Amino acid sequence: MKKLADKFIYQMSSDNPPAIEVEPGSEILVDSLDAFGGQIKRKEHTLDDVDMAEVNPATGPIYINGAKPGDTLKIDIKDIKLKEKGVQGIVPGFGLLKDKYSDPEVNVHPIKEGYVIFNEKVKIPVSPMVGTIGVAPKSGSVPCHTPGSHGGNLDTPDIRPGSTLFLPVFQPGALLALGDAHAVQADGEVCGVSIEIGTETLLKIDLVEKGINNPQIETEDNFITLGSGETLEQAGEIALSEMIKYLKSCCDFEGKEAYKLATLICDMRISQIVNPLKTVRVILPKKYFS
Amino acid sequence: MKKLADKFIYQMSSDNPPAIEVEPGSEILVDSLDAFGGQIKRKEHTLDDVDMAEVNPATGPIYINGAKPGDTLKIDIKDIKLKEKGVQGIVPGFGLLKDKYSDPEVNVHPIKEGYVIFNEKVKIPVSPMVGTIGVAPKSGSVPCHTPGSHGGNLDTPDIRPGSTLFLPVFQPGALLALGDAHAVQADGEVCGVSIEIGTETLLKIDLVEKGINNPQIETEDNFITLGSGETLEQAGEIALSEMIKYLKSCCDFEGKEAYKLATLICDMRISQIVNPLKTVRVILPKKYFS
Repeated sequence: MKKLADKFIYQMSSDNPPAIEVEPGSEILVDSLDAFGGQIKRKEHTLDDVDMAEVNPATGPIYINGAKPGDTLKIDIKDIKLKEKGVQGIVPGFGLLKDKYSDPEVNVHPIKEGYVIFNEKVKIPVSPMVGTIGVAPKSGSVPCHTPGSHGGNLDTPDIRPGSTLFLPVFQPGALLALGDAHAVQADGEVCGVSIEIGTETLLKIDLVEKGINNPQIETEDNFITLGSGETLEQAGEIALSEMIKYLKSCCDFEGKEAYKLATLICDMRISQIVNPLKTVRVILPKKYFS
Repeated sequence: MKKLADKFIYQMSSDNPPAIEVEPGSEILVDSLDAFGGQIKRKEHTLDDVDMAEVNPATGPIYINGAKPGDTLKIDIKDIKLKEKGVQGIVPGFGLLKDKYSDPEVNVHPIKEGYVIFNEKVKIPVSPMVGTIGVAPKSGSVPCHTPGSHGGNLDTPDIRPGSTLFLPVFQPGALLALGDAHAVQADGEVCGVSIEIGTETLLKIDLVEKGINNPQIETEDNFITLGSGETLEQAGEIALSEMIKYLKSCCDFEGKEAYKLATLICDMRISQIVNPLKTVRVILPKKYFS
């Protein structure tokens, strides 16, 4: 099995030279740094110790042999191994309540026996997820802290071990990269910083023909469409339109019927409300279509 | 036990004369009409058969003896009995994809053995909820189809049997009214019309001292704050600020700590994305504070 580490990008772009090549259907083990670029090492460290040019690194890009524009990348998240500590904090100018909570702060949180030690009162079971995972976009470059149709900083808790992520391919080889894992994050990621943590992530990467335009996720129980936009409303419109298309392709529901059915059984949820574009997902429970 | 039926309001306002008086701590059985005012009776009916002056009726108002501004109404939703059929449809100019799906339509759906019969392919287990429940606002009047700090058209699936809703009291007697029940609704209520249905709803109404400014819900597992605003972002800011206040009062978490903790354990979710103001809720699982 191939392994990839120590190769980082800060923009997703077709200009990035491949860090490694893999064949469709193969597994790869990817080392990723936390969103602070691994620069907060001790509890004495502050945001002043962080070189902002090195935040939000994504490991990659991975060139998938044979991937061409119009294909769909199928990425099984097989496992996420967490490092022994994570970092949270307040970053000025960032977060839903940035006008109220603006003093910079970083906090190192140990991970012990499967729990994040938040403070002496609260410990939280880890629920590892990949915050940023994406391909080179259709044109230009997109900073790794921004989500979009290419994936990127989706900050969606469903991108976790056991899930399959589908991404559209826009460039030859796809140029997949990932990072910004979280030991735990709730929907919204409201302060903008979760338990940011380095990982070793095991992926199986394959190519399928789905012809999708935006990221999709399949879990054991659900099928999920994602949209990212300037506002949550715009993000929701994208995710819902993709779900309506999916209900046509999977189950032969005509548009208006799918729209009405989604109103009843498809939860529309906030993934994150804090990045340069916001991300919303629409969740179809598989149980209705056994 | 008192019963209330056939008394409807279309605006929540201190100008509405009480329909009934109840003592704090008492139960009341409330008949409500569906959001179309019960005007869609047969499958041949269309939106042309609907007098728009009679849509979104709320049954009430209920005058709670002794309730005064600054008090908090505690409303246990004990039971919701559904009528035998519900109505869904497309209302022009309404719904997240209103520019795409604009042809008017109404559909009558039978409720059979605990399921909504959506079509020949899909049946959905009923999950009854109250869409509109609120008190007279601080000033002026608010149409029953609009949510706000007074409650109103919150369209939040957690307002269901077994839940307790807390509402601030702004006017003497509170003037509680409710209606717009749904046999089932997913988060978002994306087309704007769920399975709209008449009900018999059993409530226990009490007064407590909480000093809240916006609706809150307690379920078996969760404590939930709600916010309504012009955008989902504004609604989310209100709901999150209320949760931060709650975490201070319940568990002595200082503001910044609560903000960071909410990022990790409190899902921020869309209740509805279709009403004149949007509603977002923030969910605190009780399990972290046993």
